[in-house]
Amino acid sequence: MHFASDNWTGAHPQIMAALADANEAAHPAYGGDAITDRAIARINEVFECDAAVYFVTTGGAANGLALSVLTPPYGMVLCHAQSHIEMDECAGPEFFTGGAKLCTIPGDGGTLTVDAAAKTLSGFPERPPHGSPAHVLSLTQLTECGTAYTQADLQTLCQWAHDHGLMVHMDGARFANALATTGLTPAQMSWRAGVDVLCLGATKNGCLMAEAVIFFDKDKAKDFEFRRKRAGHLLSKHRYISTQIDAWLADNLWLDLAATANARATALCAGLAQIEAVTLWYPTDGNEVFVSFPGDVADQLRAAGAQFYPWITPGDPANGTMHRLICSYATPQIDIDRFLDLTHRLCKDV
Amino acid sequence: MHFASDNWTGAHPQIMAALADANEAAHPAYGGDAITDRAIARINEVFECDAAVYFVTTGGAANGLALSVLTPPYGMVLCHAQSHIEMDECAGPEFFTGGAKLCTIPGDGGTLTVDAAAKTLSGFPERPPHGSPAHVLSLTQLTECGTAYTQADLQTLCQWAHDHGLMVHMDGARFANALATTGLTPAQMSWRAGVDVLCLGATKNGCLMAEAVIFFDKDKAKDFEFRRKRAGHLLSKHRYISTQIDAWLADNLWLDLAATANARATALCAGLAQIEAVTLWYPTDGNEVFVSFPGDVADQLRAAGAQFYPWITPGDPANGTMHRLICSYATPQIDIDRFLDLTHRLCKDV
Amino acid sequence: MHFASDNWTGAHPQIMAALADANEAAHPAYGGDAITDRAIARINEVFECDAAVYFVTTGGAANGLALSVLTPPYGMVLCHAQSHIEMDECAGPEFFTGGAKLCTIPGDGGTLTVDAAAKTLSGFPERPPHGSPAHVLSLTQLTECGTAYTQADLQTLCQWAHDHGLMVHMDGARFANALATTGLTPAQMSWRAGVDVLCLGATKNGCLMAEAVIFFDKDKAKDFEFRRKRAGHLLSKHRYISTQIDAWLADNLWLDLAATANARATALCAGLAQIEAVTLWYPTDGNEVFVSFPGDVADQLRAAGAQFYPWITPGDPANGTMHRLICSYATPQIDIDRFLDLTHRLCKDV
Amino acid sequence: MHFASDNWTGAHPQIMAALADANEAAHPAYGGDAITDRAIARINEVFECDAAVYFVTTGGAANGLALSVLTPPYGMVLCHAQSHIEMDECAGPEFFTGGAKLCTIPGDGGTLTVDAAAKTLSGFPERPPHGSPAHVLSLTQLTECGTAYTQADLQTLCQWAHDHGLMVHMDGARFANALATTGLTPAQMSWRAGVDVLCLGATKNGCLMAEAVIFFDKDKAKDFEFRRKRAGHLLSKHRYISTQIDAWLADNLWLDLAATANARATALCAGLAQIEAVTLWYPTDGNEVFVSFPGDVADQLRAAGAQFYPWITPGDPANGTMHRLICSYATPQIDIDRFLDLTHRLCKDV
Repeated sequence: MHFASDNWTGAHPQIMAALADANEAAHPAYGGDAITDRAIARINEVFECDAAVYFVTTGGAANGLALSVLTPPYGMVLCHAQSHIEMDECAGPEFFTGGAKLCTIPGDGGTLTVDAAAKTLSGFPERPPHGSPAHVLSLTQLTECGTAYTQADLQTLCQWAHDHGLMVHMDGARFANALATTGLTPAQMSWRAGVDVLCLGATKNGCLMAEAVIFFDKDKAKDFEFRRKRAGHLLSKHRYISTQIDAWLADNLWLDLAATANARATALCAGLAQIEAVTLWYPTDGNEVFVSFPGDVADQLRAAGAQFYPWITPGDPANGTMHRLICSYATPQIDIDRFLDLTHRLCKDV
Repeated sequence: MHFASDNWTGAHPQIMAALADANEAAHPAYGGDAITDRAIARINEVFECDAAVYFVTTGGAANGLALSVLTPPYGMVLCHAQSHIEMDECAGPEFFTGGAKLCTIPGDGGTLTVDAAAKTLSGFPERPPHGSPAHVLSLTQLTECGTAYTQADLQTLCQWAHDHGLMVHMDGARFANALATTGLTPAQMSWRAGVDVLCLGATKNGCLMAEAVIFFDKDKAKDFEFRRKRAGHLLSKHRYISTQIDAWLADNLWLDLAATANARATALCAGLAQIEAVTLWYPTDGNEVFVSFPGDVADQLRAAGAQFYPWITPGDPANGTMHRLICSYATPQIDIDRFLDLTHRLCKDV
Repeated sequence: MHFASDNWTGAHPQIMAALADANEAAHPAYGGDAITDRAIARINEVFECDAAVYFVTTGGAANGLALSVLTPPYGMVLCHAQSHIEMDECAGPEFFTGGAKLCTIPGDGGTLTVDAAAKTLSGFPERPPHGSPAHVLSLTQLTECGTAYTQADLQTLCQWAHDHGLMVHMDGARFANALATTGLTPAQMSWRAGVDVLCLGATKNGCLMAEAVIFFDKDKAKDFEFRRKRAGHLLSKHRYISTQIDAWLADNLWLDLAATANARATALCAGLAQIEAVTLWYPTDGNEVFVSFPGDVADQLRAAGAQFYPWITPGDPANGTMHRLICSYATPQIDIDRFLDLTHRLCKDV
Repeated sequence: MHFASDNWTGAHPQIMAALADANEAAHPAYGGDAITDRAIARINEVFECDAAVYFVTTGGAANGLALSVLTPPYGMVLCHAQSHIEMDECAGPEFFTGGAKLCTIPGDGGTLTVDAAAKTLSGFPERPPHGSPAHVLSLTQLTECGTAYTQADLQTLCQWAHDHGLMVHMDGARFANALATTGLTPAQMSWRAGVDVLCLGATKNGCLMAEAVIFFDKDKAKDFEFRRKRAGHLLSKHRYISTQIDAWLADNLWLDLAATANARATALCAGLAQIEAVTLWYPTDGNEVFVSFPGDVADQLRAAGAQFYPWITPGDPANGTMHRLICSYATPQIDIDRFLDLTHRLCKDV
């Protein structure tokens, strides 16, 4: 019963098959190969755009490199107080940008609102050159609490950002899960809503290590290539990343995998909702469930073989009792059933 | 009627005289001169310690360089949400440290409490290497809201910091003002309370450009000299900074100047407290008064020749109506009187 | 006829099989898995040591991260003028270290000598804090010119470095090729010779993307984990890198592959040596041949399907006519034969 | 007999008088004062231009900040192997630029030639994104060996730089000395010759701590203000720097002081040239003399009270025996006479 992370899951057989294919012949290094061209074309087709696209191996690299192009080293990036770039990348954005500042915005369920963003920004009036000037608004879709922004939400936030001279970065580590839930097209959920740069995550959703950085306006990609190279993120045998993305997007595999993961989480959520003693924290818009168990139930679940982590964040509403359960495309329905049964039983005894 | 900043004020005649003295002969460059030795000895005498002491020309340099020694580039510095290092140095700490993260703590009156600090830190559980690990607690004395920590406050905060493996940095841009108010000795208000590094400001209190960075434990100064040099903050004619500090500390000049500035601000505060329509925001523990005027009184005061700036901060309790009035050692009592008279009259008409 | 780079070559079937194996089940993320443990144990067994070992996906990341641990941000790294860290990483070492300085040493055939290193260093007398202090000597094995240091060479250089307070970093992108040629053990060619940190390259020699950073003295690894994370180089599905290293080292695969590549290059070199009009530049100690062709022979070879790049470096002895031919474990002997035939014929007509 | 550095000398009385004047009243902080406006206007008048002008306290800050605007963090700065930015700023340019690379060019007498620059650059062919791309050519006037470029030299170098897409930075720590010698106008020796940014040094030539960064094309100054602020180089009481520059340029004081320093050095050089046992190394185009003394004469001179430093550089032509003697505007002629007498006598006895 693996609910610790979608990172625990292996890659999908079609991704593995693509890797094997890419291994067949010699290919030019550093992205000068045909597979890379194909994967980039695929992104542009799927997103209905003509974007500058780059591949890297981790979400931290994707976010950090993208931000380093969007803000000068003394600039400020607005983001949610629970965002991955703030909490989980060991000051990576600060490293990649050469010292830019993250300015955090509070918000329930990992969700930013224009009101909250505006209130935060109003505390930093323009007084050049004293305060660090805001350059970027960073959104996460799915949010860190597993919720999804609607297209209207995104449009409103992006409009506000652009009105205030901010570029919009989207951390799309679980973008596919959000697509599967919202039914939006990739374009609707990104550039049509106003997103300038999307970091599209594939690793958690069926790949081995593959993330795409997509600059919808090619001019804004500026010197990404140099920055990726000096950060050691340009793979010499670059085709092995490209081919994952290529296969992942082919035949809607990415959406199918996300839909499966979401279905499992939805079932898990629905089952837990039946158990009175359990507290559910946020809507399950994707593949994540945030939950508090009564008494020592969490420990007993773990003792019985369930794997999941506590979820602690600044201003934690659950006062330290919250856990995060994540499903992936590979989570067996039987694990959901077993986990729910077990929880039922344990909760009765509390 | 200059209440805009203590930075508008000129240097005290004794400081100017010291500069002239230092100009008399040739001196070794880069701090290898006798005046520098004397100024360092003076600091150690006044603070009753054997510290490593360095001089720079700005508070931003002092803070940034000090922090760069205390935290690795991926570390986190806890500080007040309104602190100068967060709000007013254009991401300088991030620059000097090579990308460390400032983690802000809320608190009324610019004041940190152990409760608030602990609550903030609890949102960042140790999960190496994912979250940026906290390395420093930064305090400001006077706080940005012009209030002073008591020795007990400082001891409690420093103890908590040390218990959590954090070094304590104090931004002492108005340390002298706090001394004059609290009556503590320099030692009591710094290392005896647990402060590891003090950035002692002299510029605002009678000098031209002179700040001291004081590492009370010499071993903790580590590579400060190299860091100061590469940042362009080692003056070639270093004696011109040292001599300011030397003269400033001599014969208690620094405390006298601070006491005068504080007395002016206290008088200003007392006068304003008599005017019903005026709102005072924080206790005036030093040389600063934070105030809201009714209607368009602020504009009329400015039109009448008074100079002061609005004070806008994250979570502004005054909803954008607050102003900061600062007195310096050179503020004439007559300016206080005139300003109070004027305010009285203008408030009547509102 | 692919002689452009060993990066063009695919991964060895045993590596691909290991990937498939690692894909079978769920594994803890971020290196907390058993495959990673096994790969680290394998490194320690093969190198007869108890080292701190980290895996990353590129040589640039390995070098940059290793150097960031060895030098402060204001320090100096001595390296060959043609070294990869100087010429080919787009200022990556400067990025990872936070601004350290590369100080280049000239030398024939990409080779450092103590004399040359000492002469260079003597131009930078210690004058703290003015000059950037040297902290690291970086060696490359194979060198950028495809030559190998003997164990005695390495011992002499490392001894000199340690005598001068420098740590020794080895860029071992083609370490396996050097082992295959010299017949030394991994230990003899690294820590027994005095190397402090080895960046061991596997990508060019049969893997997809896999490099190991080996700190032979665990204490010297210090904060590598934090630095790797913030640079986006800690893979979430870390097992996919570890398993490559594990399979690569198993049953001497790495040495077999290197020996094959070396044999091809040796044959190529021997064949070219028979052609009078061709100039060979450096001894072929591994899998690289550096050569000048007469007239337009290089262009004609390319037109006939041979792929290779010009090799231009500071102080180029060949005045811009040099080319680099690289063999890999997968280079077919028939490609060597065809290339030699073709060159023979074309050179006759010049 | 102070020949150690022009940094040992005090400030000129007119500079001290200007400081006293600037101290008379309250002035807006952070450069918003009338004195700063006047000093900037003075620079533009003297240089016959409409430049963006910024003041800082050290040459290291001026150079580092200027370079940080001219090159991206992964770019390369071409400079002389003996240049101050390479040898004497403790990796400051790397710090300010966020990791740019200095690429050094050899050359006799600290002098760059187009041939040498072109030869160096040819070793770094464009291979984006692998090699760090060159963005800046940095010149020093006077050079580190005390020689002056002619206007034709500068034009040729700047033309070459611009033809290769490089911006031209001039480290003018002793720009005034070069003006006094060459008789060129400030404009001729800077923007009319093609210099894009000049760091104009005043500290060594009569000020306390004052350097100007002059962007002749205002558009190229870009975000200098933010960069200066975050580096702690925007003085709060900014007028104290401006007033030095203002007084220094007034009534040709700067040129008079430089002419005096040059005259002393010329006399010193002429005297030493009469002593057969003494070796002079470079033409004395300004206020510096580079010399080797026979036997232990250097030590005896020091024992007799003369102060000067050995001069050791990469590729030292004097094999470690060279010393640098520097005159300033305040060097008494009698010190020159005494030093020459002494040297005469000591050399006889060798």
